[in-house]
Amino acid sequence: MTTRTPLSPTPRTRLGRARDRARTDRAELYAVLDEGLICHLGVLRECADGGATPMVLPTCYGRIDDVLYLHGSTGATSLRAGARSQVCVTVTLVDGLVYARSVFHHSANYRCAVVYGVPEPVTDPAAKVRALRAIVEQATPGSWDHARPPDRKELAATSVLALDLTEASVKIRTGPPVDDEADVAAGAAWAGVVPVGTTFGTPLPCPLLPAGSGTPEHVRARLTPA
Amino acid sequence: MTTRTPLSPTPRTRLGRARDRARTDRAELYAVLDEGLICHLGVLRECADGGATPMVLPTCYGRIDDVLYLHGSTGATSLRAGARSQVCVTVTLVDGLVYARSVFHHSANYRCAVVYGVPEPVTDPAAKVRALRAIVEQATPGSWDHARPPDRKELAATSVLALDLTEASVKIRTGPPVDDEADVAAGAAWAGVVPVGTTFGTPLPCPLLPAGSGTPEHVRARLTPA
Repeated sequence: MTTRTPLSPTPRTRLGRARDRARTDRAELYAVLDEGLICHLGVLRECADGGATPMVLPTCYGRIDDVLYLHGSTGATSLRAGARSQVCVTVTLVDGLVYARSVFHHSANYRCAVVYGVPEPVTDPAAKVRALRAIVEQATPGSWDHARPPDRKELAATSVLALDLTEASVKIRTGPPVDDEADVAAGAAWAGVVPVGTTFGTPLPCPLLPAGSGTPEHVRARLTPA
Repeated sequence: MTTRTPLSPTPRTRLGRARDRARTDRAELYAVLDEGLICHLGVLRECADGGATPMVLPTCYGRIDDVLYLHGSTGATSLRAGARSQVCVTVTLVDGLVYARSVFHHSANYRCAVVYGVPEPVTDPAAKVRALRAIVEQATPGSWDHARPPDRKELAATSVLALDLTEASVKIRTGPPVDDEADVAAGAAWAGVVPVGTTFGTPLPCPLLPAGSGTPEHVRARLTPA
């Protein structure tokens, strides 16, 4: 079930700077999350001296409706620190480099989703398989039906966490540089945007594949058109 | 001065999983940092209830020798939370999608640098300008000399933090999938790597530029060859 409520700012998700870049449509949150390949998971890690330090690690993820799923080895420090603790999950897509007439107004075009919450371990076997499917399909669509599914031992070795998309924010910058009028009038410097894109290039078949193995359709569909 | 000591693991930077992916050569740390466009800055944010929550936000950065520099508005929450507090800065480059014969062994090829430390505000004016130059040149090389430098007011509105690259780790995955022998023998699924790349596309000149403004050499040098 997809919740169609708008994104309501909380003290944590209300933007401090550049509030005009905030989006409140849940569809924009989904769009950012669905395009990302990885997220950065921030957890608190206990230190030997009793204090805590933030730890930020990249990891795969998947989304089903209003839940974000993370997974990892049952021994992974970040997943153990994140279960039932406050986490922050951030997905950032860089869309452009913004060249301004002053170095001060240089910027980037980007779309960024930030999610706060307390992830819950997914233990129900069927729910765990659904979550893993979402994670695999996020970066490698079509792989779940093509590759061998996880067996009991592999499932037992994998932790899955569910993070509700209740407390989330989306920040998006688009468009040309915003320069001071005096710099525009002076006309001394070039200004504009260099679009940044992600490409999926020519597949490198595994050396252990039989000679002449073709690239399956779901992999070809992932590739950037030439 | 570049410190040529290898990266020595501390309790925080010692890899818990896949230790064979750890690199100890400082040059590999620099290579990852120098190629990134953004980092993800993790800070602890105090909550109203007295607890703390991790906050992970994307931001620009730059490097000079063994120091990483961050900047932002003097009002930015993340920079205020990060100054003189424990932070974690992570730069991740995704190099490939690893399709395995089992969903369990699906993976990503990536290079990831993780830096822990307590950033110090940079207040010396000359040092601040050098740091800002490194930050601008990181994503938009050549812009510092081309665009108008920051004036006194802009410098006063900008906070710069310096984070020593003392406590850092680099984790790199390369190569084909590592599948179970039985899955290789079965030969039922395709396996290989789809390379992931970043492209810098055709510049979009600012609409306020005079007609016929050419694209300067430093911007053209940034573009991905066709």
